[in-house]
Amino acid sequence: MNEPDRETQRIEAFSDGVFAIVITLLVFNLRPPTREQIETTGLLSALAAGWPLYLAFAASFFFVLIMWINHHRLFTVIRRSNNTLLLLNGLLLFGVTLVPFPTQIVAEHLLDSHQAAAALVYVGWFFVVSLFFNGLWAYAGYKNRLFSPRTDRALVAHIARQYSAGPFLYLGAVFLTFISPPLALILTVVFAVFFALPNKSVQQLMDQAE
Amino acid sequence: MNEPDRETQRIEAFSDGVFAIVITLLVFNLRPPTREQIETTGLLSALAAGWPLYLAFAASFFFVLIMWINHHRLFTVIRRSNNTLLLLNGLLLFGVTLVPFPTQIVAEHLLDSHQAAAALVYVGWFFVVSLFFNGLWAYAGYKNRLFSPRTDRALVAHIARQYSAGPFLYLGAVFLTFISPPLALILTVVFAVFFALPNKSVQQLMDQAE
Amino acid sequence: MNEPDRETQRIEAFSDGVFAIVITLLVFNLRPPTREQIETTGLLSALAAGWPLYLAFAASFFFVLIMWINHHRLFTVIRRSNNTLLLLNGLLLFGVTLVPFPTQIVAEHLLDSHQAAAALVYVGWFFVVSLFFNGLWAYAGYKNRLFSPRTDRALVAHIARQYSAGPFLYLGAVFLTFISPPLALILTVVFAVFFALPNKSVQQLMDQAE
Amino acid sequence: MNEPDRETQRIEAFSDGVFAIVITLLVFNLRPPTREQIETTGLLSALAAGWPLYLAFAASFFFVLIMWINHHRLFTVIRRSNNTLLLLNGLLLFGVTLVPFPTQIVAEHLLDSHQAAAALVYVGWFFVVSLFFNGLWAYAGYKNRLFSPRTDRALVAHIARQYSAGPFLYLGAVFLTFISPPLALILTVVFAVFFALPNKSVQQLMDQAE
Repeated sequence: MNEPDRETQRIEAFSDGVFAIVITLLVFNLRPPTREQIETTGLLSALAAGWPLYLAFAASFFFVLIMWINHHRLFTVIRRSNNTLLLLNGLLLFGVTLVPFPTQIVAEHLLDSHQAAAALVYVGWFFVVSLFFNGLWAYAGYKNRLFSPRTDRALVAHIARQYSAGPFLYLGAVFLTFISPPLALILTVVFAVFFALPNKSVQQLMDQAE
Repeated sequence: MNEPDRETQRIEAFSDGVFAIVITLLVFNLRPPTREQIETTGLLSALAAGWPLYLAFAASFFFVLIMWINHHRLFTVIRRSNNTLLLLNGLLLFGVTLVPFPTQIVAEHLLDSHQAAAALVYVGWFFVVSLFFNGLWAYAGYKNRLFSPRTDRALVAHIARQYSAGPFLYLGAVFLTFISPPLALILTVVFAVFFALPNKSVQQLMDQAE
Repeated sequence: MNEPDRETQRIEAFSDGVFAIVITLLVFNLRPPTREQIETTGLLSALAAGWPLYLAFAASFFFVLIMWINHHRLFTVIRRSNNTLLLLNGLLLFGVTLVPFPTQIVAEHLLDSHQAAAALVYVGWFFVVSLFFNGLWAYAGYKNRLFSPRTDRALVAHIARQYSAGPFLYLGAVFLTFISPPLALILTVVFAVFFALPNKSVQQLMDQAE
Repeated sequence: MNEPDRETQRIEAFSDGVFAIVITLLVFNLRPPTREQIETTGLLSALAAGWPLYLAFAASFFFVLIMWINHHRLFTVIRRSNNTLLLLNGLLLFGVTLVPFPTQIVAEHLLDSHQAAAALVYVGWFFVVSLFFNGLWAYAGYKNRLFSPRTDRALVAHIARQYSAGPFLYLGAVFLTFISPPLALILTVVFAVFFALPNKSVQQLMDQAE
């Protein structure tokens, strides 16, 4: 048995709190239709017309959920904390707490002439968050810095390479917003699903950690 | 003793966070009466006129509380987690975080001509959430997949059958919104009370799990 | 050693989450002064004119904090949970999550002609919450129902009598709002301070519980 | 091994909840640009024009993060709780939950004629919070009141002296707002970075505590 120290557990609990709040607050971008809309088309049609809002909400919900799942995987392996981990983790949380802001922007402008700019802001922010996540992982995993000494270094390096695909994929989606904003947004959702899939290497690492 | 693993505990803690935030944020649908209303009728009458708002708030509060109680019962029995559990649980949380949205809609239209549509959206969403909950329970309990091997399979199947009444009851209430929206809403509250009642089979299962 | 069971700990953690969110969300009743006010009197005077808002915020903050401290004391002694505890605790949390609503009302009408009605709503709600708290304590403590069997019954009864002063004190403040609303509000703050004071009997009970 | 008691752990968990909520709610000061702004300058320029908002958000995010890190360091050493700790900690949380309010004010007035007053409110509040933090530390650390008896008293006194620089530094920044508000704001950010730096004495104390 190789328990994580109390400090690591508290960082994890604090981060979980932030993830839980962000994922719940997203719903506050969901404003009911205005009275005028409802009187014109009826409540159900007015609600149905709000689909870009629901789509943006759902995409961000699952993006944050996937970030949490992967954060959780990382902290299953981390055994020690230090000041740099605290700050890198703070940077990632900073990125995550901001997610409702671009979500609101993309929801409002998905169907008007500002679509491309809104998609750029949304996908661009996911690119930044994926950079923060990779920075955290790379720092903690480098030469097993914060992992148990028994952790398999080759496996850690292999997973770091896998995760490092993230920023490149999101960067590709950022460029795609200049050509086809809807396609870029769809790809962003596909990436989230992809990173949620079970991963053999990560599972192996987590099993070792127990 | 057969302790749940650390990962299961963290999923539980994260879910608890989301439940706690949703149940607290519901209160933000409670807007004080406008200044005009207050000047016309006085503060107390203006407040009293907001009773549909309070009713919707209270019904959703206890719906989320009951979902939390039952989620809690399920996780008392779960001993292992995997990726599918993470995603099914994420789906349930998605359903729960959205509850304030139909609550706000039913509160605003309980007394106007959109009553039927608002009740449909509200009760319909509870139906969807009950589906998510049953999916989670069915997945975790199927052949004791994530339960302790010692758990009594007949008992698990018996409880799964009991819970599976939920979606059918809510579906019935959904159809009822076409005939009598107020009755459908009252039934929804009655169901919540019903699912909050102590349940012998569930208690037996939880006792085994300790 | 006589550890509380896992279920009791989870109820406690969930309740703590709700308390923490309510106490933080209170700040959202604090709206900055409007641009017109600021242009007329300058930023600092406009801010200073908002003192009823700050007072209401501070009073509710410390009321919720004191409720949390006493909830915490109660759960130090509770060793078992059951369905009724879950529901009585849910009722108390219901009362606590609603606190921001009367707070906002009293903050807006502290200085206008609706002062008496606003004070009635505010103090009245605190009375209701104190009833919920006493119900929880009375249920859990009755014949040591949910306490350790070793707990001193005479001491429990003594503390229950002390706490039961709460509803009477708040009820007195409720009647006082008909005579002098400001005095009733000041008394409410005084009560919160009073219940925050260290209490010898409670301390003795908590020491026994460890 | 010298475990903190359950009560101390619960205070820590409650405080963590409050910190996590405040740090996440800050983002709600981030309002997207108005439709008029967007139509005039385009979405991206309208977003870019909101930089004072982002700056204020980021500064407050890291201020709260640093408060959390130092709160966390303090509770690593605390071994006992009492009623005074509960109230001093409540006072600190009171200060922290209020941070979004001056943040919103400084974000709105950073570029208009109310800059000096806004900076005064913002920096002034950080001064008050730093006083609360020092009060908490001084109370807990005085003659190892709430620390393990083995804790090195000379080291505790040394760290208390280091932390006590905080209020003086913020007070200096408060006076600076009368001369150069931008410089005062920049200094405030610099202080946050400074207090986030790893601290040898604190680390030594925390190592002793484990």
